[in-house]
Amino acid sequence: MTRYRITVEYDGTPFVGWQRQDTGLGVQEVVETAIRAFSGEDARVHCAGRTDAGVHAFGQVAHFDLIRNDVTTKTVQGALNHHMRPHPVAIRDAAVVDGDFHARFSATEREYLYRILNRSARPALERGHVWWVPTPLDGAAMHDAARVLVGRHDFTSFRATQCQADSPIKTLDELTVTPVATPWGDELHVKARARSFLHHQVRNMVGTLKLVGEGKWSADDVRRALDARDRAAAGPTCPPDGLYLVRVGYAIADFA
Amino acid sequence: MTRYRITVEYDGTPFVGWQRQDTGLGVQEVVETAIRAFSGEDARVHCAGRTDAGVHAFGQVAHFDLIRNDVTTKTVQGALNHHMRPHPVAIRDAAVVDGDFHARFSATEREYLYRILNRSARPALERGHVWWVPTPLDGAAMHDAARVLVGRHDFTSFRATQCQADSPIKTLDELTVTPVATPWGDELHVKARARSFLHHQVRNMVGTLKLVGEGKWSADDVRRALDARDRAAAGPTCPPDGLYLVRVGYAIADFA
Repeated sequence: MTRYRITVEYDGTPFVGWQRQDTGLGVQEVVETAIRAFSGEDARVHCAGRTDAGVHAFGQVAHFDLIRNDVTTKTVQGALNHHMRPHPVAIRDAAVVDGDFHARFSATEREYLYRILNRSARPALERGHVWWVPTPLDGAAMHDAARVLVGRHDFTSFRATQCQADSPIKTLDELTVTPVATPWGDELHVKARARSFLHHQVRNMVGTLKLVGEGKWSADDVRRALDARDRAAAGPTCPPDGLYLVRVGYAIADFA
Repeated sequence: MTRYRITVEYDGTPFVGWQRQDTGLGVQEVVETAIRAFSGEDARVHCAGRTDAGVHAFGQVAHFDLIRNDVTTKTVQGALNHHMRPHPVAIRDAAVVDGDFHARFSATEREYLYRILNRSARPALERGHVWWVPTPLDGAAMHDAARVLVGRHDFTSFRATQCQADSPIKTLDELTVTPVATPWGDELHVKARARSFLHHQVRNMVGTLKLVGEGKWSADDVRRALDARDRAAAGPTCPPDGLYLVRVGYAIADFA
């Protein structure tokens, strides 16, 4: 048996999320169907971060096992990319890993990007790929307020009520807000990096920072929301459109 | 009567191009239908550069006249953006201009961007928005060869056979090839700037520069293709997917 690690890019727009669900098509089902198409095997695919409906990925990582041992990584990448057509899912990399590698449990770091398009006109080209905020946002104030959330905290105020994690305590290693000028107008890019996140944590943090960008909240208000340990104390959940799983990090030994 | 200038962004993927056509929906028809919806008037919309099917725009410029004189530019932008839904077309700016302003004939400069995604995996997130070239390209060699084409030349070799321009002689002010690292892999961005272009000129130049990037052609080969004044002497037309009309320039007096 051989275990493969794949790096997956997808446009989350048409999917119910990563996970297989009865309500529609998940990215997992697209990958598993393609594995069966080229190998004849019913492999189960495990991912590093189960993204919600409408959330995108540049660098989702997943693993699966094949019983037959004669499949090269080049074949895995090429065959999956062929059989996943016309779905907007692509395998960017494939590698053979040790049998104890687990895409989710071996991960030591996850990085997300959240894109806000901050201009008066609604998006045409980037529709579904950004959160459109027409009112001008103060990116510098958002960046300053973001520092309140960095570090080890009880993130109950930023955790979806349906979150299944054992503990609300997480260490947020990085949370920055950077202005990016594009040919289609001003964007704000929120970068969030941690070993792991609670359900909706990134979208709840961005929804809260938007209140700061609008001048409705101060950095102290964000601190009070964090200290309250109450979901109702923080800002609303922002839409999935602007969220991207950029990268999943592993200890180097996993690739030995 | 009032003349309005609008700056238009669109995703070219679902359209037969800018122009109204019997074969499908053009961007022009989307805008004209929206003008009628909010004003009741049958205005004709004239654009700066009639983009082909599948070609995108960040900054197409167009003008039209309304008989009634009570419509603010804010209303024009808001009403058009409302009535053009759900088409991927957005008005980024609207202004009142003199009656002798013409989006096409007053334009003094046009700038295009061509995006090449240069990685092994086909695009998922940027599908339809880039030209996917899986074989590694030498961007520096392409940039050097591009300099051959800058200046005043007879561009017959890079002109579509159906091109209706009176003369094949154009002055190309800028043609650069720049590597751009993105979270989804390496892109090459070709920037082309001139007072005006021949039909398919940008796509034919990019299709030719790709031969240089692959190592099949040298800069001297590009010069020979230019000198031949024969469409068959240059490289193939590249797909519309990667092409964007970025900006149209006008003499400052047009906005007085």
